[in-house]
Amino acid sequence: MRNKMEKKNGDRTEGHMQKIRRVCPRIHCITNYVTAQSVANIVLAAGASPIMASGVHEVEDVTGICDALVINIGTLDERTIPSMILAGKKAAELGHPIVFDPVGVGASVFRRETALRILAEVPVTVIRGNGSEIRILLEAQSKQKAEKVTAEQTGRCGIDASESDLAKSENAESKAEIAAKLAIQQQCIVVMTGEVDIVTDGKRLCMIENGHPWMGRITGSGCMLDGILAAFLAACPKTFSERLAASAWAVAAHGICGEMAYEKTAARSGGTGSFYCFFMDAMSLLEDETLEERAKMFWRERQ
Amino acid sequence: MRNKMEKKNGDRTEGHMQKIRRVCPRIHCITNYVTAQSVANIVLAAGASPIMASGVHEVEDVTGICDALVINIGTLDERTIPSMILAGKKAAELGHPIVFDPVGVGASVFRRETALRILAEVPVTVIRGNGSEIRILLEAQSKQKAEKVTAEQTGRCGIDASESDLAKSENAESKAEIAAKLAIQQQCIVVMTGEVDIVTDGKRLCMIENGHPWMGRITGSGCMLDGILAAFLAACPKTFSERLAASAWAVAAHGICGEMAYEKTAARSGGTGSFYCFFMDAMSLLEDETLEERAKMFWRERQ
Amino acid sequence: MRNKMEKKNGDRTEGHMQKIRRVCPRIHCITNYVTAQSVANIVLAAGASPIMASGVHEVEDVTGICDALVINIGTLDERTIPSMILAGKKAAELGHPIVFDPVGVGASVFRRETALRILAEVPVTVIRGNGSEIRILLEAQSKQKAEKVTAEQTGRCGIDASESDLAKSENAESKAEIAAKLAIQQQCIVVMTGEVDIVTDGKRLCMIENGHPWMGRITGSGCMLDGILAAFLAACPKTFSERLAASAWAVAAHGICGEMAYEKTAARSGGTGSFYCFFMDAMSLLEDETLEERAKMFWRERQ
Repeated sequence: MRNKMEKKNGDRTEGHMQKIRRVCPRIHCITNYVTAQSVANIVLAAGASPIMASGVHEVEDVTGICDALVINIGTLDERTIPSMILAGKKAAELGHPIVFDPVGVGASVFRRETALRILAEVPVTVIRGNGSEIRILLEAQSKQKAEKVTAEQTGRCGIDASESDLAKSENAESKAEIAAKLAIQQQCIVVMTGEVDIVTDGKRLCMIENGHPWMGRITGSGCMLDGILAAFLAACPKTFSERLAASAWAVAAHGICGEMAYEKTAARSGGTGSFYCFFMDAMSLLEDETLEERAKMFWRERQ
Repeated sequence: MRNKMEKKNGDRTEGHMQKIRRVCPRIHCITNYVTAQSVANIVLAAGASPIMASGVHEVEDVTGICDALVINIGTLDERTIPSMILAGKKAAELGHPIVFDPVGVGASVFRRETALRILAEVPVTVIRGNGSEIRILLEAQSKQKAEKVTAEQTGRCGIDASESDLAKSENAESKAEIAAKLAIQQQCIVVMTGEVDIVTDGKRLCMIENGHPWMGRITGSGCMLDGILAAFLAACPKTFSERLAASAWAVAAHGICGEMAYEKTAARSGGTGSFYCFFMDAMSLLEDETLEERAKMFWRERQ
Repeated sequence: MRNKMEKKNGDRTEGHMQKIRRVCPRIHCITNYVTAQSVANIVLAAGASPIMASGVHEVEDVTGICDALVINIGTLDERTIPSMILAGKKAAELGHPIVFDPVGVGASVFRRETALRILAEVPVTVIRGNGSEIRILLEAQSKQKAEKVTAEQTGRCGIDASESDLAKSENAESKAEIAAKLAIQQQCIVVMTGEVDIVTDGKRLCMIENGHPWMGRITGSGCMLDGILAAFLAACPKTFSERLAASAWAVAAHGICGEMAYEKTAARSGGTGSFYCFFMDAMSLLEDETLEERAKMFWRERQ
C-alpha cells in the first residue's frame, strides 16, 4: 500500500517535510543529557527549531514561545519532574502537541511512579515507547488504583524491549492490542516501536514496516523519534485524526532514514559511527517524494 | 582585503593556530549539556585543552588551573548560576579572558535576568551572540535601571535570530551599531554572528564574511565558537587590541571551517551529519596559511 | 608476543567480543554529561546494553537489573555523589564489576576528596586513569591519614596527564610501579592509560602497546574505555584472574580501535571528526580474530 498525503490547495500536495521546513516550528525538548544533542540535531535536520530547556524557572516561558513539547525521562532526576509537569500543563493550555517518552519505565520504581504522575497531570498527545515500556505503563496504570505498584508486579526491564515484548510481524496483532488499550486508557495516540512499529489511537491502527535493526545499535534512536514526532505534529492541523496520520508519517520517516543510513553504511563497510552520521544525513535530505515512495504504512480499523 | 598577522621574532610570523597548538591553553567551560561534547571536541581540534566543570564546589579550583573561561547559558539551571559567577570572578582576578554566550536570552525572563546578573558581576572579555541575543541584551541593559524588565518589552525569541535581527550584508551597518553600543556599555568585545559576523569593541569594527548557512543547521555552532574564541584569546597577549584582533581571527577560523565542511559535504552528497563531522575535521586540520588565505575580514573605525 | 585466549568447550574458544555480543550484559553508567552519548554508543558497539542513570532515587534499582557499573567523575556535582555511592554499594553487594574513573582528580580539591570517599566506601574492581590521575590518587591516599590533603601537596593538574606523568616505553617500569602500588593499596585492578597502557593487580603486570595519539585528540576516549572495560568484565567469569585478563583485553580492544580509526582517517585525509566516527565503527565491527591478531600485550610478574 502506498499512502498519498491528502491534497490541499492546488496540484501538488504540500507534504510533511515541506511544511515543517516552511513553518519551522519551535520544539521545546525536556529530554535526557545523553542524547540531547542528537535530538536537537534531528529536529534541525527535519526542518524545525529545537530549544532544549529544563530549568524550572523558565520552562513555562520557553513552552510559551514554542509549538510543541517533548518530555523524555531518559535520565530522570527529581529536580526535572516539576519542570516536566509545568511545561506539560502550559503546552496543554496552549493546545500544543505533547510527546511523552517513558524511557526505561521498567528500570526503576522511581521512573514508573514519575511516568504515572506525568500521565495523570499532563494530557499528552502521543506516548512513544518500545514494547516493554508500553506494556509496563499499561499494567502499572491498571494496577495503580487497587494497590501500590511494585517492580515485581510489572516485571523489571532495562531500556530495551525484552524479547517477549518486542513487536514483530508474527505478534503484531497482540502487541497492537496492548498499544490500543493504553491509547484508550490515556485518550491519546500510542506509538510502539519495534521490528514493526504500531501507531494507534485505540480505534485506528497503523502498522509501519520501515526501519532497520541497526537503529537499535545506536543510542538515541527512540529519543530522536520523539523530536521527529513533535516536528510533524507541530506542523500539522490540530485535529485528532490529522495528528494520528502525522504520527504515522513521522514514524515512517524515521524508519526510512534508518534504511537509507544502513544502505550507505553497508556500501562503505562502515559501522555504527557511520550509521549515526548517515542517519542524520538522511533526515536532513529527506524529501516528501522519498517519504511517500518508501513508506510502508498499513492502516486498518481495530477489530 | 587579506589580513596578515603581525610579524614577531623572525621571518615567519607565528600564527594563531600554531600558537594555540604550541601553548595548548586550558579552557574551563561552563556550558550546556546539549553541546558540551562538541565544545570539548572543537577546543581539542583547535589545539587547546578543555575542562568542562560546573560544580559549585570546584569551579574556582578549576578556573585556577586554566587559562580562559567560557560561560554559556544554553541549558540554564538555578544551580549553575553561582558556579558561573564564582568562576567568572576568579577568572577576572587572574586576568583570564572570559567568553560569555547569552544563548536564547530572549526565550525566558529567567535567562534575561541571569544574563544581566552575570554581566553585572563578571567583567567579561567577549559577549558572543546572534543578532537577537545582542539586541535583547542591549535593550534589557538599558531598561534595567528604570523598570523591571519584562519579556514584552524586549520581544520574545527562541535560540535563533529572528529574521529582522539577522545581520546580513545589506543591514550590517545598523547591526554593527547595536553590537558597538553593547560593547561600549559593557566595556568589552562583542561578537555578533549572522550571515555577516561583526566583531567590535565599540571603536573598531570588523565585518567577517566567512561561514556557510549550514552552520545554522547543526546545533552547537555558536557554542563551538565560544570555545574557539576562548582558545584564541588564551593564546594571545592580554592587551585589549590583541584580544580584539584574536576574536576576529577566531570568528574567521570558525567560518572557514564551515565553508570547508560544506565543500566536502556537497562533494559527497552528504547531509548535516556529514557536515558536522567535516566541520570538526576542518578545525583539527586548519593551518595558519589557510586561515590567512581564506579570511574575509574587513576592519574599519566606527564612524 | 601474541596472546591467545584460553580454550573453553570445544575447538574454537569463545572470544571476548563474541561473548559480550551473546550475553549482552547491561552496563549501568553514572558518568559525565559531556561524553555520556559516546559511552552509551561504545557500549552498544561492543555488544552490551548501556543504561545511563544517576538519579539518587533510582540508582539502586537500576544497578539491580544491570551486570556492571561505571562510576566516572568527569562533571562531578555534589548531587551525584550519593548516587555513586549507593549504586556502588549495591553493585558490590551483587558481585558486579565496578569501574571507577577519577577524571581530573588533580583539577580540584572537591574531586580529590570525592574520589577518596568513593574509594573508601565502594570496593571498586578497576580504577582507570591516566598517569597523573593514578599518581595523584596514590599520593592522596597515602597522605590522607596523616593530614588534610591540599592541592599543593599532590600537584595541580587538568584532565590530561602532565608530561612527566605520561607512561611511555622509556619510563613504563616506573609508571607501572605507581599503578601497582595503588592496586595493592586498593586491592583492585589499576588501568593506567598512556603511550603505553599498564594493567596490573599489583602482582601481575601487563603492558599494552596498542593505541594511537589521536585518541587524545577527541574527548571521551578514556570515558569510552570505562564502558568497554565494564562490558568485558560483565561478560567474563567473576574470578580475580579472569577479571585481570579481561581488563587487559578491553584495553587492547580500545587501542586497536584507535589504530584502525586512524588508518581509515589518514587514508581519507580526515581530521578528528572522522576519527571519532571511525573509532565507533571499528568497535562495532571488531571481531575476536582481529583483537587477537593485533593485540600487543606483554605480561610479566611484578619484581
